[in-house]
Amino acid sequence: VQSNSTSATADTVTADLSDRLARIVGDKHLITGGVRLRPHLEELRGRYTSACRAVALPADAGEVAAVVQTCAAAGVSIVAQGGNTGAMGGAVARAEQVIVNLARMNRVLEVDPVNYTMRVEAGCILANVQAAAADAGRLFPLSLGAQGSCQIGGNLATNAGGINVLRYGNTRDLVLGVQAVLADGRIWDGMNSLRKNNTGYDLKNLLIGSEGTLGIITAATLKLFPAPKRRVVAVAGVASPDAALDLLGRLRDASSDRLSTFELMANIAVQSAVRHIAGQTDPLAGEHDWYALIVADGTVDGDGDAGAGLRRDMEAGLARALDDGVLRDAVIAESESQARKLILLRENIVEAQNFEGGSIKHDVSVPVAQVPEFIRRVHAAILDAMPAARAYPYGHMGDGNIHFNISQPPGMDKEKFLAQWRPMNRIVHEIAHQLGGSFSAEHGIGLTKLEEMARYKSAVELDLYRQIKRALDPHNLLNPGKVLPAASASR
Amino acid sequence: VQSNSTSATADTVTADLSDRLARIVGDKHLITGGVRLRPHLEELRGRYTSACRAVALPADAGEVAAVVQTCAAAGVSIVAQGGNTGAMGGAVARAEQVIVNLARMNRVLEVDPVNYTMRVEAGCILANVQAAAADAGRLFPLSLGAQGSCQIGGNLATNAGGINVLRYGNTRDLVLGVQAVLADGRIWDGMNSLRKNNTGYDLKNLLIGSEGTLGIITAATLKLFPAPKRRVVAVAGVASPDAALDLLGRLRDASSDRLSTFELMANIAVQSAVRHIAGQTDPLAGEHDWYALIVADGTVDGDGDAGAGLRRDMEAGLARALDDGVLRDAVIAESESQARKLILLRENIVEAQNFEGGSIKHDVSVPVAQVPEFIRRVHAAILDAMPAARAYPYGHMGDGNIHFNISQPPGMDKEKFLAQWRPMNRIVHEIAHQLGGSFSAEHGIGLTKLEEMARYKSAVELDLYRQIKRALDPHNLLNPGKVLPAASASR
Repeated sequence: VQSNSTSATADTVTADLSDRLARIVGDKHLITGGVRLRPHLEELRGRYTSACRAVALPADAGEVAAVVQTCAAAGVSIVAQGGNTGAMGGAVARAEQVIVNLARMNRVLEVDPVNYTMRVEAGCILANVQAAAADAGRLFPLSLGAQGSCQIGGNLATNAGGINVLRYGNTRDLVLGVQAVLADGRIWDGMNSLRKNNTGYDLKNLLIGSEGTLGIITAATLKLFPAPKRRVVAVAGVASPDAALDLLGRLRDASSDRLSTFELMANIAVQSAVRHIAGQTDPLAGEHDWYALIVADGTVDGDGDAGAGLRRDMEAGLARALDDGVLRDAVIAESESQARKLILLRENIVEAQNFEGGSIKHDVSVPVAQVPEFIRRVHAAILDAMPAARAYPYGHMGDGNIHFNISQPPGMDKEKFLAQWRPMNRIVHEIAHQLGGSFSAEHGIGLTKLEEMARYKSAVELDLYRQIKRALDPHNLLNPGKVLPAASASR
Repeated sequence: VQSNSTSATADTVTADLSDRLARIVGDKHLITGGVRLRPHLEELRGRYTSACRAVALPADAGEVAAVVQTCAAAGVSIVAQGGNTGAMGGAVARAEQVIVNLARMNRVLEVDPVNYTMRVEAGCILANVQAAAADAGRLFPLSLGAQGSCQIGGNLATNAGGINVLRYGNTRDLVLGVQAVLADGRIWDGMNSLRKNNTGYDLKNLLIGSEGTLGIITAATLKLFPAPKRRVVAVAGVASPDAALDLLGRLRDASSDRLSTFELMANIAVQSAVRHIAGQTDPLAGEHDWYALIVADGTVDGDGDAGAGLRRDMEAGLARALDDGVLRDAVIAESESQARKLILLRENIVEAQNFEGGSIKHDVSVPVAQVPEFIRRVHAAILDAMPAARAYPYGHMGDGNIHFNISQPPGMDKEKFLAQWRPMNRIVHEIAHQLGGSFSAEHGIGLTKLEEMARYKSAVELDLYRQIKRALDPHNLLNPGKVLPAASASR
C-alpha cells in the first residue's frame, strides 16, 4: 500500500510536470510515450536501458530555459540530447528524468563568408552545417561517421574529434562562441564571433566537452575556412610505424602543413579489406607491413600552373622519402575517382572487421611521437593475454588517436571473446596511460568511462571538476551521474 | 597610538611571513626592499603605484606551492608576476601583498620535434622559447613586441595575442597542457601533450587568460609547427578598407590559407612613417588611401620549382585582384632584405606616431567583416568630438584587431589632449560594442579595464565568473581585485 501510494504520488508529479512542460513547448512537442519515444531511448551500443518521464522538444532557447526552470522547481533533473549518436551513454536517461532534445532548433542563423563564421542553432545536423558552409564557398571542417544524424550541439557538448583533427583541430578549436541555458534556467549569451577577445574567463571552453553537465548549449558561432578545391591523395607502403612517423614529419614540411589526413594501417587490416570487401584491391604492387593514407588539401583552383603547386610539393616530398629509404613504395591518385578509391580503403577496413567475428574496440590516444612504442607494447601485451587474438592497429596517426581494435581468435565463441572487453580495455588503457596517453581520445566519458575517470585522473583534478560542477549546478540538475565519478553527488 | 600599534603588529606579521617565505625560497630569493625590488613594482604605462610585502622567487612548482600555502595560512594574498610587461596593470600589487615572480623557473624542459610539442617552465622568456623551437627545426608562432622580456607564463595568464593570430591563433590555441598551483597550494598537473584527449572539463583554458586569479601557471606544454622556410611579402595599395577585406579573402584562397599577416594601414599613417623615419620610403609609386602589408609563409625549402609554388600562388592571386579592380598597385619583395624593409613599414608607423605628439591608444577588435564599418563610424565620431584630432587606423585586419590610435591636433597641449583618454576610449569602445566587438582584444583586463567589464559584460556572465572564482579561490587569495569588477569580494 505504501509503495502504491508513493507510486501514485510520483505519477501525479509526472502528470503535473508534463502539463507544465506541454504548456511551454506545445502538446505536440512533448513526448511521454508511444513509438515517438523510442529513438530517444535507443543507445548506440545497446549497453544501457534508457527511460524518461518525458522528452521535451523546445523551439528556441527561451523554451529550453523555461523547461529547465520548470524541472528545477520540481527537483527533476535533465538530460540534454542531440542526435543521440554518442557511443558513451552520455544521453541515456533514467525514468525520473526529463530529456530535452534540441532537434527542432535546427536553423542555420547566418553564414558570413567574409568573416569566415557561421551561427547555428544547436539542433542543426552536422551534414547540414557542412553544406551551408560549402554553399558559401567555405569549409566547416568537422567531419565524422555520424554526420548525417548527429547534431552540432552534441558535437560541441562532447568536443567531437573526427578525421580532420590533424589540420583543423577538435570541435573545440572550431568554435568562437556559444549560447547556453544554465542550471538555474538563465540564458548565457556568449555568441562571440571575434578572433581576438581577451575579456574574462573562458566559459565557452568550459561548456564545450562538458556533456550537458554544466549547461545546455543552444547555439554556436563556428569558424569557417577557405574551401579546399584541390586535393592530393596518396597511399604509401612503409616498413614500420617509426618509418610512418618519419614520413608524417617530412610531408608536413613538404606540403607547407597542408595535410588534413594521415592514417596508419597495419597490413593485416588492409588485407582483410581486400579479402572481404568487393572491389577493394591493394593499391600497391606488393604487400607492405604498414600502409599510410595521406591527404593534402589546397584551396588554389585552376588548371596548369595554378593549383599544381601542392601536387608538385607532395610528389617531391614522397620522392625524397623514397630516396632516403623512409618509404618502400607509394601511389598518388591521378584523378578524383582514384582519390576516392584510395580513401575508401580506410573505410573498408572498418567494414571488413565485421567479417572477422567479434571485435573489442578502443578510443585511445598517445603523444604522436609515442605511437610506434604504443603499438609495440599493446601488440605484445594482447598476444600475451590471448595468443590467438588478432590486433588491427589503424587510425589517425596524425593526431595520435590509434583505434587499436582486437578481433577474436578464429573459431572462438564470439560472446566468450566479447566477455573479455573489460580486461582487454584495461590492458590497452594502462599502456596508453604509461605513455602519457588518454583512455578517451574523441568519444568523451558519458557513463561508459566513469571507472577510468576515477582510475586515471588525479584527486586534485577530480576535485576541481567537482568544485566547478557544484558552482555552476549546485542542485545537480544537469545530466547528473555523467562525466564525474562522484558517488556522493549523484541524484 | 592605536594606529602605531596596528602598524607594529603588521610589521611583525610581515617579518614572520618573510622569515617563512625565505626558508622556502632561500634568503637570496626573497626581496623585501632595495633596488632589486624596483623592476617588480614598475608598471608599463606609469598609471599605478605598485608595492608589496615581498617578492618571492621560487625555484620550482613545489616552492610556488609552499609559498601559496604559507601566504594562505597568513591570510595574505598573492600577485603572480612574469616579465612584468603587461599593459593593463595585472601584475600591480598592494603593500600588504606578496608577489610571486617566476623568473627563476626558466628551463626549457623538452623539445620534441616528432611530437611537435615542447614543455617549458613558466618563467622562460618568450624569445628563448621561440629559439629553442627553431633550433629543433620547428616554429612556436607566438610573437609580440615584448618577446625579449615577457615570460611564457605571463603570455598564458593573459592569453596574449600578437602578430601571427590570423594563421596560428592566440596563446590559448598554442597550448596543449599546463601545470598550475591552486589557491589552496596544491599542484594541478595538467601537462597534457595529446592532440586528442576528451576527458573531463577544460581546466587548461579556464586557467589561460585568468590573469593569475584562478591559479599560478608553473609550466606548459606548447604546440609546435613546421618551421617556415620561405616567405612571400607584399604591400598592396587599395582604395578602401572594403577593398582590403575583399583582398584578404582572395589571398586566403589563393595561398591555400598560408597568410600569417594581413595588416591594414591608412595613408596618413604610412606618410607619417615616410616623413619621420630615416630611410622609410613609400613602397608604391603613387600614394594610396589605404595600404595592406601581406605575409605568406611556406615550409617548402629548395630552389627552382620546389619552394616556388607559394610565390606563384601569391603572384597569381594579386594579379587577379588587380585585373578585377580590387587593388590599385602592389609590390612583392624580390629578396629577403626587401621583405624585411616592407615589414619595417608597419613597425615604423608605430614609431612615427611619437613624432606627432600625444596619442590615445586602443586595443579593440570587431568581427573581421565589420572592420570597414568600424573604421568609418569611429572616424566620424572622433572628428565630431574633436575636429582637429588625427585618426591613425592601422592594425591586424586579418583578425579584426584594429589599433585605432588618435594623435593630438597639431599645436594642442599634449597633457590637455591626453586628458581626453577616457572619453575617447568610451567613443571607440561603444562603437566596437555595437558592432559585436571587444574592448580588449589582446591585452586583457587587469585593473585598467574593470570599468569596461562592468559596463559591457552581462549580469549572467559576471555571475558565472564570480561563481567560478569563488569555487576555485574561496578566500580570494589569488590576484584579488583583478579581472572581476566585484566590489563585494575585494581583499
